[in-house]
Amino acid sequence: MPYYIGDVIKDARKLTARTPEKFRESGIEVIINTRVEQIDPVGQVIRLGGGASLPYDFLALGTGTAPLMPGIPGEDMEGVFILKKLSDALRIKDYLKETPCRKAIIIGAGFIAMEVCEAFVMRGIATEVVHRGKLPVNRWDPELGLIIFDELKKHNVAFTTDTELQSIEKGSAYRLRLNTNHGPTEGDLILMAVGVKPDTTLAGAMGLALGKSGAIAVNFSQQTSVENIYAAGDCCESFHRISKRWGNIPLGDIANKQGRVAGSNIGGKPMIFPGVVGAQSFRIFSLEAAATGLTEQEATASGFHPVSVISWGNAIANAMPDPKKIGLKLIADRATARLIGAQAVGEAGVVSRINTLSATLWSGLGLEEIGYIDLAYAPPFSGSWDIIHNAAQALLRKL
Amino acid sequence: MPYYIGDVIKDARKLTARTPEKFRESGIEVIINTRVEQIDPVGQVIRLGGGASLPYDFLALGTGTAPLMPGIPGEDMEGVFILKKLSDALRIKDYLKETPCRKAIIIGAGFIAMEVCEAFVMRGIATEVVHRGKLPVNRWDPELGLIIFDELKKHNVAFTTDTELQSIEKGSAYRLRLNTNHGPTEGDLILMAVGVKPDTTLAGAMGLALGKSGAIAVNFSQQTSVENIYAAGDCCESFHRISKRWGNIPLGDIANKQGRVAGSNIGGKPMIFPGVVGAQSFRIFSLEAAATGLTEQEATASGFHPVSVISWGNAIANAMPDPKKIGLKLIADRATARLIGAQAVGEAGVVSRINTLSATLWSGLGLEEIGYIDLAYAPPFSGSWDIIHNAAQALLRKL
Repeated sequence: MPYYIGDVIKDARKLTARTPEKFRESGIEVIINTRVEQIDPVGQVIRLGGGASLPYDFLALGTGTAPLMPGIPGEDMEGVFILKKLSDALRIKDYLKETPCRKAIIIGAGFIAMEVCEAFVMRGIATEVVHRGKLPVNRWDPELGLIIFDELKKHNVAFTTDTELQSIEKGSAYRLRLNTNHGPTEGDLILMAVGVKPDTTLAGAMGLALGKSGAIAVNFSQQTSVENIYAAGDCCESFHRISKRWGNIPLGDIANKQGRVAGSNIGGKPMIFPGVVGAQSFRIFSLEAAATGLTEQEATASGFHPVSVISWGNAIANAMPDPKKIGLKLIADRATARLIGAQAVGEAGVVSRINTLSATLWSGLGLEEIGYIDLAYAPPFSGSWDIIHNAAQALLRKL
Repeated sequence: MPYYIGDVIKDARKLTARTPEKFRESGIEVIINTRVEQIDPVGQVIRLGGGASLPYDFLALGTGTAPLMPGIPGEDMEGVFILKKLSDALRIKDYLKETPCRKAIIIGAGFIAMEVCEAFVMRGIATEVVHRGKLPVNRWDPELGLIIFDELKKHNVAFTTDTELQSIEKGSAYRLRLNTNHGPTEGDLILMAVGVKPDTTLAGAMGLALGKSGAIAVNFSQQTSVENIYAAGDCCESFHRISKRWGNIPLGDIANKQGRVAGSNIGGKPMIFPGVVGAQSFRIFSLEAAATGLTEQEATASGFHPVSVISWGNAIANAMPDPKKIGLKLIADRATARLIGAQAVGEAGVVSRINTLSATLWSGLGLEEIGYIDLAYAPPFSGSWDIIHNAAQALLRKL
């Protein structure tokens, strides 16, 4: 009988119909609120909290990531949150319901930080982003990051740069005080969004091989170093089709795909997970931001010879009213004239361009072809030369 | 000296700064309001209306398409328009300014018809679409065409099906009367939008080879059957990367690309036009419609073994408010499990999906890979399984 051991069911209030009983009718035993204390890969037994044991033929690990914490005094105070699991989100919602929250502080400026920032502002909560760097989302080129920064300003989000965290304590005007190298700042809620690392506690303890990234090493079948143990999602590695290296990209869509591949293989239907190109996106107020492939730093580390260009334009035809600003950065390898990465920010059509470019990255297209690739032109959606064409041709001229 | 002979300059009222004089400063002689009467490809001379002659070393033809006319009595009456050139659009605008227009009749239901329909309705003009078929845009599957039909109804557009045109005459309640097999219908303006054919009058007269489609035959350099004569745009053929046949797809973005390739080759910089996959799109009110690749009929004619699926879903994540309905049809070849066509209609994200799929068609990806291709997931833009993934997997199960 398949077992599912986890905590997601209880937290998923909207999913209450799917109780363990419902799953049992489908032949799946769901065990919730239970820790897995130890796994014996030789005896093929899981030891649960409370002492019970569970034998297995196949095991699939989906232990996800653990949030990074800055390690400062007071980070465990009430009102300080992380946002990793559904239960974390529900905890924040409950807190906001129960506690008048006038101001929130978000520590970090990655895309989880950006998404929560939007959610707070839309609830009418004054929001401050406290960041160790100078611009949000450092995966995006500073020229593009600046557009996101301007969008935050436009929505009255305070953005504090170059910050070193010192401690959290009880506040005076607000419930909490965050002390930093710039002095104190206060808020009723603090969200830690400084990053995550793969949670490999169990995997490590049972001796599974980990990859260079620290995540669980898997093969194309999502199989770990132990034949009947599979892993999927944020806890394991993926093959990057551009760098040709295995690494950890903790994103929900990748986790979904890997989970299905692992399950299919365990169930006896052979499947492979064909890897990733690094496609990702988020929305911040009225801006779309998306990226794919490698950054210039990653490209250099992989031995490519990156050359890049940033094109600015209009996501729709210039003949249309109400232009939609868009900036697209393309990165190519000088030696091969092949595209190796792209980043975009703008008012419309950003994810559209990045997904199209992801498909070209997937197949390893060269700039020459991308500059003339056939796209579905109509004035509400692009110029007759799309910004993809313009950027690819501009970059080709630079090689 | 390069010559440009045409009529677009005069009509382009917004481009008045670009007068022939301005072009002359850049070394280009612009001759407007002048017919080319004859071309002698052996003597390399163009004979202009009025008797003047112009010698050439290289010649580029961009004669475009000629609108098809139904050939009924009264189709040349005042108030009956075509929409092919900028000057046609300006003529319609002038007519609308000068003549109170309460109701317009559009004959045809292709995507030019749809676009003008939207424009008329947005100007407050009651609009009737008169069509020989049952549903708009017959390139799209009837299930998708029905959504467009519903959108027309929602905006109070009358849609008359199965219509045979008989004649146009003076109206009584409105300025014009259109007689059809269903009886008469009246309007102040009639737009003929029943299609176009390549304008090859000059090319045919000078003996250039035409392709099977009736358009001017060209090679990858946009060179015609005569070495120093090139052609670009709607008047010539393109290589279709899926059917591997040469055909005529008269679309503005293709024309732009071919023009640049022809010019580059004439100017001495070798370039090829890599062909098309048939990507196209239009907006109708709040719907996006787009298609790429082959239809099932075209696929069968090309010797493929088409199998298709239509997936309906939400263009954004279900957790987001305000779902955006989208329908995506995928067509694959049963023998190779390769994608060969796609069509979509929906409230958002349609062009985005079709462009992504166009890039996969460009490279000849199989359904297996498309079902797991890496896309930039975030809830405002898609589910963690995008409709592309779902449709590709559903189609794979049908093979």
